[in-house]
Amino acid sequence: MESINNKIIPKPIKNLILAFSGLPGIGPKTAQRLTYFVTQKSSEEIETLSQALVSVKDHIVLCEMCFYIMEINPDKDSRICLICEGNRNKNQICIVESPLDVIVIENSGIYDGLYHILHGAISPMNGLGPNNLKIDALIKRIDNNIEEIIFATNPTLEGEATAMYIQELISELNVNPTITMLARGLPTGADLEYSDFSTLSNAFENRSSFNYSE
Amino acid sequence: MESINNKIIPKPIKNLILAFSGLPGIGPKTAQRLTYFVTQKSSEEIETLSQALVSVKDHIVLCEMCFYIMEINPDKDSRICLICEGNRNKNQICIVESPLDVIVIENSGIYDGLYHILHGAISPMNGLGPNNLKIDALIKRIDNNIEEIIFATNPTLEGEATAMYIQELISELNVNPTITMLARGLPTGADLEYSDFSTLSNAFENRSSFNYSE
Repeated sequence: MESINNKIIPKPIKNLILAFSGLPGIGPKTAQRLTYFVTQKSSEEIETLSQALVSVKDHIVLCEMCFYIMEINPDKDSRICLICEGNRNKNQICIVESPLDVIVIENSGIYDGLYHILHGAISPMNGLGPNNLKIDALIKRIDNNIEEIIFATNPTLEGEATAMYIQELISELNVNPTITMLARGLPTGADLEYSDFSTLSNAFENRSSFNYSE
Repeated sequence: MESINNKIIPKPIKNLILAFSGLPGIGPKTAQRLTYFVTQKSSEEIETLSQALVSVKDHIVLCEMCFYIMEINPDKDSRICLICEGNRNKNQICIVESPLDVIVIENSGIYDGLYHILHGAISPMNGLGPNNLKIDALIKRIDNNIEEIIFATNPTLEGEATAMYIQELISELNVNPTITMLARGLPTGADLEYSDFSTLSNAFENRSSFNYSE
C-alpha cells in the first residue's frame, strides 16, 4: 500500500483497508478484497455489519464468575452467565484460554461442569504476564467444593507454561482438587507420517491398551 | 454454529459472527475469531472500523468513464476518476475485472493508459451474464482514438470467455484498434516441477528468443 500510486486509492477505501488490516489474520490482500466487496454491497447490508460491530461492544460483558462473554441483562444486577447459572456440575472447573474454546467444548456436548476463561496465555513475547489474565479470580474461586480442575489451555509453549504456573498457585492453596489436563496424542484423521515429534512422542507415552471390538 | 448449545452464544455475538461470515473468504471459524477479537477492542477502535465501513458506501462512487472506484467530490458534477482525468495515454484501454486489478497494475507503474473495469467476469454458474458487467459502456467508449485495447482479465475460464465475448463485440464495430492480451507463461519464482499443464503449454507456445547477456 505504500506506493507512489497510492493517490489513486480513494481515502475512504484506504481507511477501510487499514481498518480491516487491523483485524487478526487479515493481510493486506484480504483487506483489499473485503473492502472491494463492501463497495459492492447495498447500504443496508453494510449498515447491518456496522451495527453488529457496535452492538457487540454495547451489549456484551464478561461473566463475573468465569469471564465468559454474555449479553448485558438490564433487569439484573449480577453479571453471571448462563453456564455458571445453569444446572451444571459445580464441582468441576475447566480452564481455557478463550471464549471460543468454551463454544467448541459446549458444541461437543462432552462436558457439563463450569469454566474459567483466562483471556489469553502467559506470553512474555506478547507482553502478556500473569496479571493480564484472569488468574487471581480463578484462585479465589477454588474452594473445597471444587473436586476437579481440568486444564484445557492450548497445547502450545504458552498454554503449557500458563497451566504450570496456575498449577503451582493451586498447590499452595489449602485445598486438594484433582488436577487433570486434556489428553495429548494423535488427532483424529491425522496422517502419522506427517505428525511432529512432540505429538508422536506424546502419543507413544500416553498409549493405552488396545480394545479389540469385533 | 447450528448446535443445540447455540444458546450459550449471546445474540450480539451470533449476529456479528453471521455478519462476518457473509464476507468473502471468511469461514465460520475466522468469523468467530474476528468476533472475539472485536469484543476485546475498545469502543473507540470498533467505532473507527464501523465508521470506515459506512463511510465507504457514503463517499464512494464509480467513475462514469472507466468504473473505477472514486471519492465523491461535492464540488463537481461529473464523476470522472483521477486516472481518466489525469495526464495519461488516452489511446490505450486496459480491460480488467476488478478495481483491485487497477491498484496492482498502478502500483507496478508499468502502464500509463486508461482502464475499463468490468466489475466481474461472465460466469453463468454465478448468474453473471454480459448484462451484469460494464460491457455496453466499454463498447461505447471505443472510437477511432483508441489505438490499443489490452485484455487483462484473469487467466481463468471466466476471464478468457469474457475477453472472447468482448473481442467479438469489438470486431463488429467500425474501428480497428490493436487488440492484445497479457502474456501467458511461467510466473516469476515458480517451480517448473509444480506448474500445471495449461501454464506449461502456454510457456512453451509463447517461448521467446533467448537474450544471452553476459
